[in-house]
Amino acid sequence: MAQDKKLVEAITSMEEDFAQWYTDVVKKAELIEYSSVRGCMILRPNGYAIWENIQKQLDADFKATGVENVYMPMFIPESLLQKEKDHVEGFAPEVAWVTQGGMEPLQERLCVRPTSETLFCDLYANIIHSYRDLPKLYNQWCSVVRWEKTTRPFLRSTEFLWQEGHTAHATAEEAEERTIQMLNVYADFCERVLAIPMIKGRKSDKEKFAGAHATYTIEALMHDGKALQSGTSHNFGDGFARAFDIQYTDKNNTLQYVHQTSWGMSTRIIGAIIMVHGDDSGLVLPPRIAPVQIMIIPINQNKEGVLDKAYELKDRLKAFKVGLDTSDKSPGWKFSEQEVRGIPLRIEIGPKDIEAGQAVIVRRDTREKITAPFEDIEARVSEVLEKMQSDMLDRARAHRDSHTYYAHDMAEFEKTIAEKPGFIKAMWCGSEACENEIKDKTGATSRCMPFEQEHFTDTCVCCGEPAKVMAYWGKAY
Amino acid sequence: MAQDKKLVEAITSMEEDFAQWYTDVVKKAELIEYSSVRGCMILRPNGYAIWENIQKQLDADFKATGVENVYMPMFIPESLLQKEKDHVEGFAPEVAWVTQGGMEPLQERLCVRPTSETLFCDLYANIIHSYRDLPKLYNQWCSVVRWEKTTRPFLRSTEFLWQEGHTAHATAEEAEERTIQMLNVYADFCERVLAIPMIKGRKSDKEKFAGAHATYTIEALMHDGKALQSGTSHNFGDGFARAFDIQYTDKNNTLQYVHQTSWGMSTRIIGAIIMVHGDDSGLVLPPRIAPVQIMIIPINQNKEGVLDKAYELKDRLKAFKVGLDTSDKSPGWKFSEQEVRGIPLRIEIGPKDIEAGQAVIVRRDTREKITAPFEDIEARVSEVLEKMQSDMLDRARAHRDSHTYYAHDMAEFEKTIAEKPGFIKAMWCGSEACENEIKDKTGATSRCMPFEQEHFTDTCVCCGEPAKVMAYWGKAY
Repeated sequence: MAQDKKLVEAITSMEEDFAQWYTDVVKKAELIEYSSVRGCMILRPNGYAIWENIQKQLDADFKATGVENVYMPMFIPESLLQKEKDHVEGFAPEVAWVTQGGMEPLQERLCVRPTSETLFCDLYANIIHSYRDLPKLYNQWCSVVRWEKTTRPFLRSTEFLWQEGHTAHATAEEAEERTIQMLNVYADFCERVLAIPMIKGRKSDKEKFAGAHATYTIEALMHDGKALQSGTSHNFGDGFARAFDIQYTDKNNTLQYVHQTSWGMSTRIIGAIIMVHGDDSGLVLPPRIAPVQIMIIPINQNKEGVLDKAYELKDRLKAFKVGLDTSDKSPGWKFSEQEVRGIPLRIEIGPKDIEAGQAVIVRRDTREKITAPFEDIEARVSEVLEKMQSDMLDRARAHRDSHTYYAHDMAEFEKTIAEKPGFIKAMWCGSEACENEIKDKTGATSRCMPFEQEHFTDTCVCCGEPAKVMAYWGKAY
Repeated sequence: MAQDKKLVEAITSMEEDFAQWYTDVVKKAELIEYSSVRGCMILRPNGYAIWENIQKQLDADFKATGVENVYMPMFIPESLLQKEKDHVEGFAPEVAWVTQGGMEPLQERLCVRPTSETLFCDLYANIIHSYRDLPKLYNQWCSVVRWEKTTRPFLRSTEFLWQEGHTAHATAEEAEERTIQMLNVYADFCERVLAIPMIKGRKSDKEKFAGAHATYTIEALMHDGKALQSGTSHNFGDGFARAFDIQYTDKNNTLQYVHQTSWGMSTRIIGAIIMVHGDDSGLVLPPRIAPVQIMIIPINQNKEGVLDKAYELKDRLKAFKVGLDTSDKSPGWKFSEQEVRGIPLRIEIGPKDIEAGQAVIVRRDTREKITAPFEDIEARVSEVLEKMQSDMLDRARAHRDSHTYYAHDMAEFEKTIAEKPGFIKAMWCGSEACENEIKDKTGATSRCMPFEQEHFTDTCVCCGEPAKVMAYWGKAY
């Protein structure tokens, strides 16, 4: 029994030390293993399977809007990276450089892609000629490298997995429409599948992507009250098109620059799943993203008939992602493993249950026990999974809303951020000076100017000048 | 009409210049675009979609055998690469080196993975402790880099996509079993899905993988009579385990080294699909791997009712991967595009067809026209696709078999290879000296020692000493 509790006991409590809790969960749930390569993580089967599910569902969402997948080289010649001025300034300081190929030093350095705008622009300049070639709606799933100083599993690592969509359009309107469309795809996916509610909005000029005309973001609130930027969508206008000379002949036979967008979501979102839903026993995965939704755990599995019934149950539940743990570990140990891994339901089945013609379903999030007669088990499991999915979204939304505050002046801003971690809504004049001052005084950054605006004072929370916009602020990962 | 033929006319005929034909098809079918990065190709939507289908089906085959996916870092520290002596000798001359991260030179060079044995070994040394941790059956889908001097689309490029499986087992027998099991998964996939028959066998010591105890291969014959190594599976014995100190405690509490395997298939296999099935009009894709299986092409689409009927047909065929070309190009141009892209079937539908209550199905491989009544169209399409898939395999097998020859002595070997491109079966003493001599004299390499052995002379085709084994020989990509 002492051994049974070991797995869970090894996890630091959230209240005690949230950062350590996070690291413990990531390790104990076997999502990640550290590698010999500085700042690079190994995604183990439990971790990678979550990413595979994200890929599968998000990729279908992309394709439903007409997006096609491609694969671009992982290397970018230095001269190509330098073509767009803001872009190279933003990324050059944090890239890895290949200087030697085989036995020979390279004539031109190649960077390992930190993002692939320049490669897509180079391709588009080659293959876009006429209005008939537009729009181009390309995406790729790949890894990128950014030479980070401090790293944390999923949240910040030297190499990480992501997708990057890159589109080219005939008009500015169409590009803006696509930028917002993809932001909505992300937000909808996060709410529907990951049970994470998102604030949608626009980034300040200071926080926008290097080379973008406008950056839109979805922002989530973690359990500890910190914000996490969870996906971004950029409208480039024709800036890259001018730098890379991407022109097409329109219907009037006139040369025009294309208008471009890019948008990305990365393995970072797995960090959000952990920090929004996890508890002191480990991970809690929303049913729609869980690689295993149900773990059947036999009790007294050596008693006649128990394993037979467990296999029968597994077979009956094959419409779900179901596992059966027949190892020689104790049931208590198996419960702990199922809990640490965040498997949404476990089904306990022992001799007494079999006699009574029923099994016990236990929800991972609430630990609620539901007794279900065998003949009814598929329907009950389906119902409980649905309920768990929607309850998780409701709880995440309630947590976010109860940790979102208004600040009318700097005194209130500073007091709130010090005492109540969460989002702060505050009116803002829009100047970078105030944005910097707020960050210096409080550690909070502007998360976004939300699409859903409110107007609750007339003056900027920082300088007292007329306010132009309401923004969300917060400390962020 | 002149314009209608342009697409196809731009393809060099196979008989005239097979290499140029290949390059033309790859480009005209829009599978690939060259990039600004030396030796790196861009996989365009038509090309990447084939890879996606390969991934999807092969990944399911892997998982059915218990394999789990992971993701390992793309960088390997130089010291880690050097741990296994044969391995580093095999790969060090052809890797790309990262020497600078961000603004600082690195203390230790990192190579961009040419393959990931060393990383998996490093992981396994950390996570394998007891017999309970075995077997480990991990795989990853990723890109790798090998600094190649001459490159060709799909066949040889600096960066390419692949999967690499890496397993660890308690016993030598289990490792050998897994090595053969995965070779069979590849061969079965190629025959069943890609309609490419494979010769399965073992590589000679000269041709085996750097660091392997034994390498097994599947070899296919291209239309021009050259061989293509299409997938390999390696048994490492405990060589890597000793170099990386991967030990486990067995049931008797004794420390034992694990036994390992690795196996891979890459985008190279797309080159095989092109060169086995293609013709002078372009690509011909087997129905089971085609991203689009049917293209509906309306004739006189401006006539009333034609487009309506075309949409209706598309809807009725939605169980298949079906497209409908409603662009303002001419039908002839659309036919050419469908042919170049290798889409297995096209369905032509015009006013006369509608009047007659039927559509015309045209097979890409044989150009056979099949008239199908509307009410019967799903069943006919299904039947024709099945037939085409099996005909393609039969034709590929017949081509291979009719281009496979016996050589009893070197005179026969040299004459055959000079006059009849194909596989040569010859008895061999097994010495590397003869292998080298055959290569010097004929340009042919030993492809494999097939599992299905024959014994048709007692002496080595080269030296006349007693023969130990029959091998397949051929010129290869």
